[in-house]
Amino acid sequence: MENFIFQNPTKLIFGKGMIAQLAKEIPAGKRVMVTFGGGSVKKNGVYDQVKEALKGFDVTEFWGIEANPKIETLRKAIQLGKEKKVDFLLAVGGGSVLDGTKLISAGLMYEGDAWDLVLKGSYRHTVPLGAVLTLPATGSEMNSGAVISRLETAEKYPFYSNFPVFSVLDPTVTFSLPVYQVACGIADTFVHVMEQYMTTPGQSRLMDRWAEGIFHSLIEIAPEIIERQDNYDKMADFMLCATMGLNGFIALGVKQDWATHMIGHELTALHGLTHGATLAIVLPGLLRTLKEKKRAKLLQYGERIWGITEGSEEDRIEEAIARTEAFFKSLGLPTRLGEAQIGEETIREIERRFTERKVAFGEDQDVTAAVARQVLENCK
Amino acid sequence: MENFIFQNPTKLIFGKGMIAQLAKEIPAGKRVMVTFGGGSVKKNGVYDQVKEALKGFDVTEFWGIEANPKIETLRKAIQLGKEKKVDFLLAVGGGSVLDGTKLISAGLMYEGDAWDLVLKGSYRHTVPLGAVLTLPATGSEMNSGAVISRLETAEKYPFYSNFPVFSVLDPTVTFSLPVYQVACGIADTFVHVMEQYMTTPGQSRLMDRWAEGIFHSLIEIAPEIIERQDNYDKMADFMLCATMGLNGFIALGVKQDWATHMIGHELTALHGLTHGATLAIVLPGLLRTLKEKKRAKLLQYGERIWGITEGSEEDRIEEAIARTEAFFKSLGLPTRLGEAQIGEETIREIERRFTERKVAFGEDQDVTAAVARQVLENCK
Repeated sequence: MENFIFQNPTKLIFGKGMIAQLAKEIPAGKRVMVTFGGGSVKKNGVYDQVKEALKGFDVTEFWGIEANPKIETLRKAIQLGKEKKVDFLLAVGGGSVLDGTKLISAGLMYEGDAWDLVLKGSYRHTVPLGAVLTLPATGSEMNSGAVISRLETAEKYPFYSNFPVFSVLDPTVTFSLPVYQVACGIADTFVHVMEQYMTTPGQSRLMDRWAEGIFHSLIEIAPEIIERQDNYDKMADFMLCATMGLNGFIALGVKQDWATHMIGHELTALHGLTHGATLAIVLPGLLRTLKEKKRAKLLQYGERIWGITEGSEEDRIEEAIARTEAFFKSLGLPTRLGEAQIGEETIREIERRFTERKVAFGEDQDVTAAVARQVLENCK
Repeated sequence: MENFIFQNPTKLIFGKGMIAQLAKEIPAGKRVMVTFGGGSVKKNGVYDQVKEALKGFDVTEFWGIEANPKIETLRKAIQLGKEKKVDFLLAVGGGSVLDGTKLISAGLMYEGDAWDLVLKGSYRHTVPLGAVLTLPATGSEMNSGAVISRLETAEKYPFYSNFPVFSVLDPTVTFSLPVYQVACGIADTFVHVMEQYMTTPGQSRLMDRWAEGIFHSLIEIAPEIIERQDNYDKMADFMLCATMGLNGFIALGVKQDWATHMIGHELTALHGLTHGATLAIVLPGLLRTLKEKKRAKLLQYGERIWGITEGSEEDRIEEAIARTEAFFKSLGLPTRLGEAQIGEETIREIERRFTERKVAFGEDQDVTAAVARQVLENCK
């Protein structure tokens, strides 16, 4: 096991009817800016519940944080927040709204252009923020990460700032989610766990078991919640899996990969593809490319998650990857570049970008531009 | 799943050589009281490392917090701390030192006798405390609980105050632990997990899997670490299991039992038996007594943890309990009252105490004094 330092201060407020609790978590007298995506929160009742809970606070609303939040939009929010002297942020939405609000939170304390902060990669001087989550997927509600895009240059980068002070997770608000968003949320959670699991074997028995516990739970829940989204206990477990999948709890003392995400971000930046869908495409190709390096862990994964115990090691590994791809397909997601109309030109552009940026990913930083090309070739 | 609010602010500093980091975690100028148990930390090098790390701080040492920390001892520490105007505590030891220091931390802010606080059950006005853990078992390093004893009346009660601000866990310091302490630590961790797991089935797939992940890890590690205590990775996983077993991570949205602990505390209070050993005795008897109520979860536990799939439900449940008892025996622990020379008189006294205190335990508060008697009959 590797040495580690872990701390996660976010207060999780979980369950039916818990949105009403949020006012208790915001210090009296704060000037609150509430940030939203589109109008879905007006349809599902979340907006009304938040408004009711915030009675008595000086509230500014900012609407329009889009999927894959854009710096162009967030600059406007930062400007509005500065004008209104906002000193508390409440993000109401899915991972994009939360991610965007993390950048607003840093941008409010920064004099220059907020894109500087994204390029810098992290910034700790922030306005406190809370969240009401409406879409389980990114884990942003209980971590310090965010991913921010820039429209004019088709770029998308991770950025690290502050943990939410609190996050309210009411599973009933997910009942009205479109099935495609549920599917992408499941895939996103699954791949978050994979990034922390599918590395060096034998680092921690416990972390392996906990990661596998999330896989098992997602696989058990998925068929029903793809069919219908109103089973409270199953949506609650999905929501819990998504949060626990990227809050540090399964990353204690183990290496992490993240190459699938870094390649997936490029697909979103270049084509606007939903994050979860990019991961469903990239992960199987990445596993096929790196199957020698990840051999032992792939065998463990195949046996413990998919019950694969027969056949040669080679066959068992192939089957484990095929079962993973079939799982994503069962969610209704594309698993090949061609299904998303992505071809050779994009592969060339991603290879060019990684070469130019002189980056390499993966637990041993050996997923270079050339390896990323191989991965994408295996996603065709 | 039940509604819940979760927050755990403790900073975990984990790994070889990490004791040196602790000075960075204590604000400059603090008057620190360092609390210890007996002299083992002088033999294993922990004392020297802590002293080196605290150079430059105004340090007071308090020695002699015993196993099952006694209010009689802690009163002296509180008096000394008040005299020295201590405003930061550093507990260096196992769960008893940590638990005792939590009461000191509350007692330093309280005018009256600290036993009042134990009887009150919780107290939030505390001096900040950090910890260097030397014995994995209680989870006290990452939770707000403590258990305090009173010698003159042979009483022992749980008490809740503050989370450690930080805890340093260096697995190498466990290499010199006596095997009996390792055995009790494994049993304690196992039963902590059981208290949070063996209740209503189907509350959360994920929490079930995470609890089962700790069981699996402990069962895999135990044979080797009982044999020898110097395998870094296995002791690191043991240490991680003990912390994760009682820091709230496996208790999200699920009911908890704790009857085994409450009965076990009485055995310690009356006979001075080590906490982990009391649990190894009480748990099998409790499961036998409540096997109808806990039927579905016992079947799940038997199948997933011990691979028991054959035979009638009755047989499978019996085998699951027998395997659990055999596991404790394999650690070298007693699993029956008779092995600890405890007889009918103690059963009568515990029944009398629970009746007099009008208490009932368990996830549905139905382990009354009469049920506790049945449990203890089944521990004979």
